[in-house]
Amino acid sequence: MSESEKRQTLEALAALVRYHILTSTTRADSGHPTSALSAVELMTGLLFGGIFRYDIPRPRHPNNDRLIFSKGHAAPLLYALWAAAGALTEADLRTYRQFGSLLEGHPTTRLPYVEAATGSLGQGLSVGLGIALNAKHLDGLPYRTYVLLGDSEMAEGSQWEAIQIAASYGLNNLVGILDVNRLGQRGETQYGHDLSAYSLRVGAFGWKTMEIDGHSFPEIIDAYKAVFAETDRPVMIIAHTTKGKGVATLEDQDGWHGKALDEAQLQEALAGLGNIDRSIRGHIEPPEDKQPPMPLPGEYETKTNYEIGQAVPTRNAYGSALKRIYPGYPQLVSLDGEVSNSTRAKAFKEFYPERFFEMYIAEQNMVGAALGLSTRGKLPFVSTFGAFFTRAFDQIRMSQYSDANIKIVGSHAGVSIGQDGPSQMALEDIAMFRSILHSVVLYPADAVATEKLVEAAAGHPGIVYIRTHRGPTPVIYDDQASFAIGGSSVPRYSDEDTGTIVAAGVTLHEALAAHEMLKAEGTYMRVIDLYSVQPLDTQTLRRSAAQTRFFIEEISRNAIVRRVHEILRAQ
Amino acid sequence: MSESEKRQTLEALAALVRYHILTSTTRADSGHPTSALSAVELMTGLLFGGIFRYDIPRPRHPNNDRLIFSKGHAAPLLYALWAAAGALTEADLRTYRQFGSLLEGHPTTRLPYVEAATGSLGQGLSVGLGIALNAKHLDGLPYRTYVLLGDSEMAEGSQWEAIQIAASYGLNNLVGILDVNRLGQRGETQYGHDLSAYSLRVGAFGWKTMEIDGHSFPEIIDAYKAVFAETDRPVMIIAHTTKGKGVATLEDQDGWHGKALDEAQLQEALAGLGNIDRSIRGHIEPPEDKQPPMPLPGEYETKTNYEIGQAVPTRNAYGSALKRIYPGYPQLVSLDGEVSNSTRAKAFKEFYPERFFEMYIAEQNMVGAALGLSTRGKLPFVSTFGAFFTRAFDQIRMSQYSDANIKIVGSHAGVSIGQDGPSQMALEDIAMFRSILHSVVLYPADAVATEKLVEAAAGHPGIVYIRTHRGPTPVIYDDQASFAIGGSSVPRYSDEDTGTIVAAGVTLHEALAAHEMLKAEGTYMRVIDLYSVQPLDTQTLRRSAAQTRFFIEEISRNAIVRRVHEILRAQ
Repeated sequence: MSESEKRQTLEALAALVRYHILTSTTRADSGHPTSALSAVELMTGLLFGGIFRYDIPRPRHPNNDRLIFSKGHAAPLLYALWAAAGALTEADLRTYRQFGSLLEGHPTTRLPYVEAATGSLGQGLSVGLGIALNAKHLDGLPYRTYVLLGDSEMAEGSQWEAIQIAASYGLNNLVGILDVNRLGQRGETQYGHDLSAYSLRVGAFGWKTMEIDGHSFPEIIDAYKAVFAETDRPVMIIAHTTKGKGVATLEDQDGWHGKALDEAQLQEALAGLGNIDRSIRGHIEPPEDKQPPMPLPGEYETKTNYEIGQAVPTRNAYGSALKRIYPGYPQLVSLDGEVSNSTRAKAFKEFYPERFFEMYIAEQNMVGAALGLSTRGKLPFVSTFGAFFTRAFDQIRMSQYSDANIKIVGSHAGVSIGQDGPSQMALEDIAMFRSILHSVVLYPADAVATEKLVEAAAGHPGIVYIRTHRGPTPVIYDDQASFAIGGSSVPRYSDEDTGTIVAAGVTLHEALAAHEMLKAEGTYMRVIDLYSVQPLDTQTLRRSAAQTRFFIEEISRNAIVRRVHEILRAQ
Repeated sequence: MSESEKRQTLEALAALVRYHILTSTTRADSGHPTSALSAVELMTGLLFGGIFRYDIPRPRHPNNDRLIFSKGHAAPLLYALWAAAGALTEADLRTYRQFGSLLEGHPTTRLPYVEAATGSLGQGLSVGLGIALNAKHLDGLPYRTYVLLGDSEMAEGSQWEAIQIAASYGLNNLVGILDVNRLGQRGETQYGHDLSAYSLRVGAFGWKTMEIDGHSFPEIIDAYKAVFAETDRPVMIIAHTTKGKGVATLEDQDGWHGKALDEAQLQEALAGLGNIDRSIRGHIEPPEDKQPPMPLPGEYETKTNYEIGQAVPTRNAYGSALKRIYPGYPQLVSLDGEVSNSTRAKAFKEFYPERFFEMYIAEQNMVGAALGLSTRGKLPFVSTFGAFFTRAFDQIRMSQYSDANIKIVGSHAGVSIGQDGPSQMALEDIAMFRSILHSVVLYPADAVATEKLVEAAAGHPGIVYIRTHRGPTPVIYDDQASFAIGGSSVPRYSDEDTGTIVAAGVTLHEALAAHEMLKAEGTYMRVIDLYSVQPLDTQTLRRSAAQTRFFIEEISRNAIVRRVHEILRAQ
């Protein structure tokens, strides 16, 4: 094909993509057509201009280039592109925004061409960073990761975390495409059409930047080709675009964010597009068939090595477990927010430095990157102080819509860290993680339980949170004890139990002490170690409810004893 | 005093400050002496070098300059400075990190010289931004806000949100002091001692930057003086410092983060400091006595204006309430994350543009800035989609330790927004806000309840969250109905009630519909509108528990009816 024929094909595809954007949003009577229209050439050029490599029948092909719409509200464009590629039909597009459709208002991974769910702005670049990290620093694969960014979302700090860390890992396989269409949801963005405002900032962080006309195919294709020359810098293509491009009444107009055309407006808009050839399809070359390393799980030491009564911080057991189980979970990687000496991820890092990623004090990007690694089959364990995961709640929340397989380990739980003060204490972490649908929340009381539950977490697909302590707690379980997600342990029980003390983590040791104090008075109390805070072992709880007269949950031994006395006096 | 005498005084004060840092941390056997030592000259020069204006007996003086330790772990330095100023005694310093002391491991506002609690990194600059915004754009006061920053925390995205927004508001009264001591908690930072890495980035965002030797008083004082010349740019002083400065065995040494010296090491370190004059005191000039505007609450329309049955989104009532009550709450300001047309903060903005602050899509900084405004007596209402407040959970969490008086309003609650998809839905917001100690969580069902509860929130000191809907719900209350924090409403009840349906917000309308469906079958169900999710009206709940046989909580009318049928069959 000659250059001019190529150009004509791209123009025809762009018109078809616009046709799909406009018709699907009008049919749904909602969506964001204007935000989709501004990036039509940028994305059409990428997918169909000989740049993008993708095996359409095999969306999970390890060498496929990856495309993330960080500006998730441009979803109509994403769906239109895959329709133009022949991967979706017009019938599929008609389901856009309908209940049950894979084509949701913002992309989710229910659609196989979506790498990660987006829609909460400023998250796509971190996910892309994780995916690019996988290609460059783990699997040695040739794929590139392209992230479409909106100009408004550049105000999110998470973007700058990702920009900074991507540069420090030299991710020349990560490409940001910044669609500077000037208009946000409620008017002009901070920098309007000043492309240099973006290139100055992004360039200062160590990226290669290019400023282009985002509606000119030659400039677009040249920019993508220039990416190939980079060896150690990520690239940001900063494109001057027009919101609503291609529809005269919408172009560069305020007040059209997130609004579909009505039927009459649609007809007028379609007429303005000229002749649309709905039968043409864009061609995407598949990638080479290079296989990533696929290490098989090997044998590993399954025995833990502690003495009953030995004082060990559960965070130490976390580090030791990671190191111990890795041969059995060869996809395991560790990410930490510049506190690996405190979380004890350091124990893993020292043995497997190539599987450890320093993510610095930037928790949002760390969780986003972990999600990216997880989408490429890795098993990320992410650690910082439990308190600081509140920083990444939005990323954690969003990861549930991307079938995330990430293990989050928060240290320094609870008031027991004492004198460092409340800023360092994880107090809200259990409530936070429990609010995530299908998440698992584990709170082990000793080193053995921690080691076993780290292992259970590694084998459990999904989002798992493990809470560890800074200070030492005595080992109370031997290596034969078993711990399961959804399980519990009953370290003290008898047929004479009056009531039940429920505890987990550090409070279990208070419960055990209270048990002894009450036993000395002749009162037998059952003690349940409810280490699986979610899901809960309701069976054991119900059994105790039937067998004992009351339940107690308090944070100190004295409070437990006092409360039991009160209850017994009242009865 | 001659220049050389001034210099000698500063050197003597710096030695005294070092003495306090070392002795207090050794006495506590914990804390972060090395992170405090690196900034001794930077802070001694600021407070005692004729720059800082502060009326020590009146920490709440409206014209006091403000100092925030964003690197909160340098708390021993903060306390040592105020001791050197004569505001704290050596006896006070001896309580550092003791239970009950005002001198906590990381600063909190229990100590009157602390503007905001810090310790979770990357938050101080946003708080400072709010304080500076107050001086420049609200009260027209001459004070400056100084924020001490660590180099590691510059990786936090929240910093770049604050840096970007501070520049866009032209805050020449905001000064960042970046203590580049090269070493983080677990080794070297990303940029080590490369000051230009920071000045390039911060400068690209529109700040004036200066690179200085952070242990040279002449350079430090000159830098602070240069700030006075700026008219529309914030200033970042980027200082090359040495971690552990002043103690030969600690200087620039890795492995000494967050560790106190033992007694023998302390004695050696103190000997190295030379003669310490513990009697000298640094002088701080008080500020001028200019009064800020203190508008008195005026009269305002207390009646709302809706018809029963009228369909109104509760978000609309939020905007309308803000506008209506402002004359009665003249400290009210509105902050929004570039979605004021969706949250309806726009209704307030249109009438009172000078009280509205566009915070762009940067929720972390928005909440931090609101805290800063609140510390200066303003009454900030902060709005975005409820889902996106998860982005600022760490800032919300930390604000509870600064006695925050902020009202957070999250729109687009729940699954009822439907086709936009889960990324936009606030689903975890109630769990998140409930986890904050003493927080109030309100979820009104109609426009009248929303207006009344916005008013209740304005009058309630503390952290209040209000959840609003996108879609319209019918008005069910008349203007006479009263709504209180901790209250509830019982729109349907009779002496024959079999059970109780508990609901709030959009589900109340489902409960009312279910009530009618069941009444038609002869089953009377009480309906409680539990609009105050926290605190909960336990009295009303207990009364219903005594008067009816069971409670129901479901999200749809059909689910409620089905469940009531099941229960009645089983009984």
